[in-house]
Amino acid sequence: MSGNKTVVYKGPGEVAVESFAYPKLEIPQEVADAFGIKQAAPHAVILKLVTTNICGSDQHMVRGRTTAPIGQTLGHEITGEVVEIGDDVLFHKPGDICSVPFNIACGRCRMCNEGKTGICLNVNPARAGAAYGYVDMGGWLGGQAEYVMIPYADFNLLKFPDRDAALEHILDLTMLSDIFPTGYHGAVSAGVTTGSTVYVAGAGPVGLAAAFSAQLLGASHVIVGDMLDARLKQAESFGCSTVNLASGDSLADMVADIVGEPEVDAAVDAVGFEARGHGEGAAEAPATVLNDVMSIARAGAALGIPGLYVTGDPGAVNEEAKHGQIGVRLGLGWAKSHSFVTGQCPVKKYNRKLMNLILAGRAPIGKAVNATTISLEDAPSGYKQFDAGAAQKFVIDPHGMVA
Amino acid sequence: MSGNKTVVYKGPGEVAVESFAYPKLEIPQEVADAFGIKQAAPHAVILKLVTTNICGSDQHMVRGRTTAPIGQTLGHEITGEVVEIGDDVLFHKPGDICSVPFNIACGRCRMCNEGKTGICLNVNPARAGAAYGYVDMGGWLGGQAEYVMIPYADFNLLKFPDRDAALEHILDLTMLSDIFPTGYHGAVSAGVTTGSTVYVAGAGPVGLAAAFSAQLLGASHVIVGDMLDARLKQAESFGCSTVNLASGDSLADMVADIVGEPEVDAAVDAVGFEARGHGEGAAEAPATVLNDVMSIARAGAALGIPGLYVTGDPGAVNEEAKHGQIGVRLGLGWAKSHSFVTGQCPVKKYNRKLMNLILAGRAPIGKAVNATTISLEDAPSGYKQFDAGAAQKFVIDPHGMVA
Amino acid sequence: MSGNKTVVYKGPGEVAVESFAYPKLEIPQEVADAFGIKQAAPHAVILKLVTTNICGSDQHMVRGRTTAPIGQTLGHEITGEVVEIGDDVLFHKPGDICSVPFNIACGRCRMCNEGKTGICLNVNPARAGAAYGYVDMGGWLGGQAEYVMIPYADFNLLKFPDRDAALEHILDLTMLSDIFPTGYHGAVSAGVTTGSTVYVAGAGPVGLAAAFSAQLLGASHVIVGDMLDARLKQAESFGCSTVNLASGDSLADMVADIVGEPEVDAAVDAVGFEARGHGEGAAEAPATVLNDVMSIARAGAALGIPGLYVTGDPGAVNEEAKHGQIGVRLGLGWAKSHSFVTGQCPVKKYNRKLMNLILAGRAPIGKAVNATTISLEDAPSGYKQFDAGAAQKFVIDPHGMVA
Amino acid sequence: MSGNKTVVYKGPGEVAVESFAYPKLEIPQEVADAFGIKQAAPHAVILKLVTTNICGSDQHMVRGRTTAPIGQTLGHEITGEVVEIGDDVLFHKPGDICSVPFNIACGRCRMCNEGKTGICLNVNPARAGAAYGYVDMGGWLGGQAEYVMIPYADFNLLKFPDRDAALEHILDLTMLSDIFPTGYHGAVSAGVTTGSTVYVAGAGPVGLAAAFSAQLLGASHVIVGDMLDARLKQAESFGCSTVNLASGDSLADMVADIVGEPEVDAAVDAVGFEARGHGEGAAEAPATVLNDVMSIARAGAALGIPGLYVTGDPGAVNEEAKHGQIGVRLGLGWAKSHSFVTGQCPVKKYNRKLMNLILAGRAPIGKAVNATTISLEDAPSGYKQFDAGAAQKFVIDPHGMVA
Repeated sequence: MSGNKTVVYKGPGEVAVESFAYPKLEIPQEVADAFGIKQAAPHAVILKLVTTNICGSDQHMVRGRTTAPIGQTLGHEITGEVVEIGDDVLFHKPGDICSVPFNIACGRCRMCNEGKTGICLNVNPARAGAAYGYVDMGGWLGGQAEYVMIPYADFNLLKFPDRDAALEHILDLTMLSDIFPTGYHGAVSAGVTTGSTVYVAGAGPVGLAAAFSAQLLGASHVIVGDMLDARLKQAESFGCSTVNLASGDSLADMVADIVGEPEVDAAVDAVGFEARGHGEGAAEAPATVLNDVMSIARAGAALGIPGLYVTGDPGAVNEEAKHGQIGVRLGLGWAKSHSFVTGQCPVKKYNRKLMNLILAGRAPIGKAVNATTISLEDAPSGYKQFDAGAAQKFVIDPHGMVA
Repeated sequence: MSGNKTVVYKGPGEVAVESFAYPKLEIPQEVADAFGIKQAAPHAVILKLVTTNICGSDQHMVRGRTTAPIGQTLGHEITGEVVEIGDDVLFHKPGDICSVPFNIACGRCRMCNEGKTGICLNVNPARAGAAYGYVDMGGWLGGQAEYVMIPYADFNLLKFPDRDAALEHILDLTMLSDIFPTGYHGAVSAGVTTGSTVYVAGAGPVGLAAAFSAQLLGASHVIVGDMLDARLKQAESFGCSTVNLASGDSLADMVADIVGEPEVDAAVDAVGFEARGHGEGAAEAPATVLNDVMSIARAGAALGIPGLYVTGDPGAVNEEAKHGQIGVRLGLGWAKSHSFVTGQCPVKKYNRKLMNLILAGRAPIGKAVNATTISLEDAPSGYKQFDAGAAQKFVIDPHGMVA
Repeated sequence: MSGNKTVVYKGPGEVAVESFAYPKLEIPQEVADAFGIKQAAPHAVILKLVTTNICGSDQHMVRGRTTAPIGQTLGHEITGEVVEIGDDVLFHKPGDICSVPFNIACGRCRMCNEGKTGICLNVNPARAGAAYGYVDMGGWLGGQAEYVMIPYADFNLLKFPDRDAALEHILDLTMLSDIFPTGYHGAVSAGVTTGSTVYVAGAGPVGLAAAFSAQLLGASHVIVGDMLDARLKQAESFGCSTVNLASGDSLADMVADIVGEPEVDAAVDAVGFEARGHGEGAAEAPATVLNDVMSIARAGAALGIPGLYVTGDPGAVNEEAKHGQIGVRLGLGWAKSHSFVTGQCPVKKYNRKLMNLILAGRAPIGKAVNATTISLEDAPSGYKQFDAGAAQKFVIDPHGMVA
Repeated sequence: MSGNKTVVYKGPGEVAVESFAYPKLEIPQEVADAFGIKQAAPHAVILKLVTTNICGSDQHMVRGRTTAPIGQTLGHEITGEVVEIGDDVLFHKPGDICSVPFNIACGRCRMCNEGKTGICLNVNPARAGAAYGYVDMGGWLGGQAEYVMIPYADFNLLKFPDRDAALEHILDLTMLSDIFPTGYHGAVSAGVTTGSTVYVAGAGPVGLAAAFSAQLLGASHVIVGDMLDARLKQAESFGCSTVNLASGDSLADMVADIVGEPEVDAAVDAVGFEARGHGEGAAEAPATVLNDVMSIARAGAALGIPGLYVTGDPGAVNEEAKHGQIGVRLGLGWAKSHSFVTGQCPVKKYNRKLMNLILAGRAPIGKAVNATTISLEDAPSGYKQFDAGAAQKFVIDPHGMVA
């Protein structure tokens, strides 16, 4: 095992596959220094990637909307086979196939104790919370690679109970590292329950996963909004209603046409800060989606906001937005007694239950998001297609293990 | 009983006491028409006011920051004695002394069924939720008066079990109609629990009630921020720490001086849209307080937002704010996985439990907010003093029943 | 409308259809007297029955296992059309088709305020909680009839939004008055969620509804246990696994054969005090089912117990059981940190959301429980068949309104 | 450090202090074997005991009511100073003073992930959940000793932020290892909240801690029941009302005398299976307390049951009880829609928040339970006094570190 081919960011619009050293059982120097802990990591494992997906949030970096440096390794949606374990890894062993939550967590701090693994206190000098292969997220190497090091492995790994069953369902299971729990978190945060009418803004992979999750949670109607027909068709493929926001029609009217009133019980913002205004060719307007969902969510509703909002956005449309300040119609939400749930999904809170449903054959999420397998070499092409609006979720298969 | 003296709005900065007709067991015409129901109200009672308080939200109208018409009756903090009952009032009778939630609720709609009495669907043609004596809140007559009609009385009234005990604790119990539950709701919404460190923005009556409630909920430290020394002293009188935001010091630094870190576990915005920037003489800046509480609330925190944000504000500092759109640092909250709870407090959810604590002698809220009794005739003077920043909560005693 | 044919209890094993007076807008004398309220009920309506089902709990009376007097009217599963309204019924009108929760609730007491309508404080002199047509439940007339009086109608009625759609789904909607919410409550109380493995004890209508609800809540596997093959087949008809407890095999072994371990995540006792021991011909043993579900529920599980346990049982197997005291293996539950949720389902908490799902065509509960329509005259025969173990849910159609 | 004096069980009614080998960073052989993991424990630390308390549950063993073998080491209430750490202990270092939850937990299994540390799946071959120095709890050595090994230390240790402050509050902080969280869990499980009336059965240390916690949670009235006057006086010392069950008066009447009705909002069983019947000299009757709390808990109440119930009790009064089966009036609870929460307290869920309150000077639990410091040599005497009903909580101070 002489090297480790990995996807890296090469500047706006460009990624490449480059060769890195085979990973060690060590945490990043910057993390060790900041927290005064050893770099040697007896709690870590090396995984051989089975699958690793391209995520919409990777695109923020690749589009040059962040401060990611050239050479930033990419990839936080990781499913792999354990090939090496540290001395304090007790409950996993070589050969286990596991899903890895994108949020790196120590399992030992107050936040992890409370199940808030998205804001672990011990993994990122810059703030609470970390991730693999992401700018400002602690310097952990990306997992769009052949191999990757996973720290605190007994805490972070979700083992699939049976290897054959795992490989059989791998295009569903690969969504457990991020988008399936993230979409589910959005739906749960929005209070979706038996009989709810639900609006999901955005038909990218997270939006589709939120819509699919809303169905699992018992929604009576799920409406998905986007501006791209191909993505909307994907939502329709598993039974959602859709509205095209490029049409220029009023969102409330389009909702009323479907559910008989201009309101829904629950709403999810699966778009975030790169939102655009309504109508064809509308310019970026970062609070559009959030204000939209407030406008059509019933009084008393909760809004699930898995869509990313950032503290700084160098490419933003105005000064305020560059500092993460956007024009929210808070008075509208207040008048309707809305509550708002933001932030990274704490994947561990949901991944086991969703795995159980997948393995029982009751959650074909891979098909819902149109999982499409590509080789590691084809990752740059996958990034390009996804950025162009392909209604596909690209799953990289570095070792040809996916049938 | 030939008339009913009532406090009315007479134009910016001005209120007066005027004589109205004695109330009838009838709901407002506009409500009856909008919902296609009878105006006759067998579910209603007439209350003789025991106490009725001036509220900070009344000031929004009196300052001319709303579209309240001249002649608008005022008063939604109502405690009274039942003097007349409709044919379908079964569980209350003349002589009962009761607290009335400021939010009018039918007890029969989906929202009331779910306990969300602040957004009842049957009491206001304009939107979900209503209140006594308030613009755009359904046209219900105000309770800063001698008598007031209360609809759906078996649902809305909270009877004090014993008349003598009630009168003995009346300056505490009078806070049950609004500010005590509202402050408590703010603290509960912020997730205050045993051992929490808490920041409350605003030392007006609601802020003080939130701070007092945080103590009841077991907070280890409660910090109150304001720009007025007299209000801060009031907070200190019952054991809070305080920070003066007119000082120009950094809020995070001031918090760190008190609790040893620049963060708290839970934060409450008890100010709302009439917020000002920091430092002496700072101008109005409607999102200041909300952005402040995000900045010092721990990752994973919930923010309780009982402070009022409005859908329209004719007197706002800019066009966006006039339409209720304000510059929120949402990216900061998102990065910290904050959740935000907005809206009117559903008073019924809390008033009984707080009453029980008051009657057990364990919740001297009247003293905490510096309850000050005045006559109905003195109401105009009370409005002026309160607007000038008096660290007092004015309790009108229209019939001289308070000892 | 000169009379009102109604099903009555005539002694152990016997029911008949007898003619009663057409109902009035009045509450029972005993209730009026006990609570010091008027008998005249401006809050009430008269319903013309559309459907009214025979319930397993009716059988406790008919088998002579209660103190029900001869002449007791029967029927608490009520769906009907409003034909007359009192002066304080504002939000329902003649022609509305509505479901009625079996638990009678005033909507005005502390328990109703908290959503605990199964233990309303104002409807039964004997204890908290009441029901139509049931012994010791307040003296309210039964609804297996042509007409029935419903008190506090704006609170108790759930209106179907569209008459045609209602009649189209009537065999599903008729289950909203009791067994669908009751089964759902059992599953919710047991903590069933996405991916759960679930065991439901009992394949009568409530057990089937619990199993069906567990699927709606996202269970990965639902196992139903009973001793009657026909009932188990009914459970299999909608995708459940089953175990036959008359087989003499160990329950844990049978569970392990299905889910791969001798435990489930959640368990529901839908049998109650008339439980029998295991094996063919086993005698009654009232704690058998409860001890069973503890034995196979995972550590940390919650047990939902919609199955009825009684405070007195004249026909019980021993003295203790006659007084409602039974031999529970509490130490086993304690060692596993189980929690136990007992009591009547508060139907209003769930009926609206389940209605929405039915009307969206996503909850064919009528088929799941094998709804079988009969005439009012055939009610006695329906009772007999049901008691004999028929895998059917009998729906009485007094006016021939069911297609 | 040549040895490790430890308290051991020597047969019914007898304990002694004996010398053991200084502990190693190793888990018990039986645990390593059962779970197929290494005995070497890089995740462990050695603590030098600062304080270690005698617990009521130790008495079950010492009274001979369990199968504990002679030689069983004792002690699970542990507060200590870190003196040695394994290679994978990253966030604790020698010199730290820490509280240790009595329940041993791995921090890596599904139950620990869900916060259910009382039923960890990886620490006890016999069942879910383990503890130090307890029969059938995994073979972990007891902490009534000079030194003790703590596994999974980064997960299990709660570090006190400041050494001096810790030693100043040590008689409060020492209660964090078990009885304070256990009592708090009982009160939380019973749904105690602002304004609740509460009944706590049992005035031993856990009962007192439950009563104290109920006050912290905002109870309006707390009533404690016991048969020993000295214990009841202890409850009165911090503001509780009391009832003496040896008096022969009806519990409901005594409760009504205090709160004005024969019911409370919430009830805690802090006695468990060694309960006695009522009246002076009453014999053991294992379900007495549980049936009592049902009888006086309001309809809709939850019952917190921190009192221990066992799966087997060799010394029980009858055959059923020997197998953990007791005569519960389940029908009564069912009629009142009670819920029941049983099991070991998951200490980690609460210890940090209670620590914060203690360190803020707002939770003098040591005084409430009458903490009494003794030397390790005096442990046998402490056991005897406690068993005789002393209203004291004995705190062993093996190294003379308590001022």
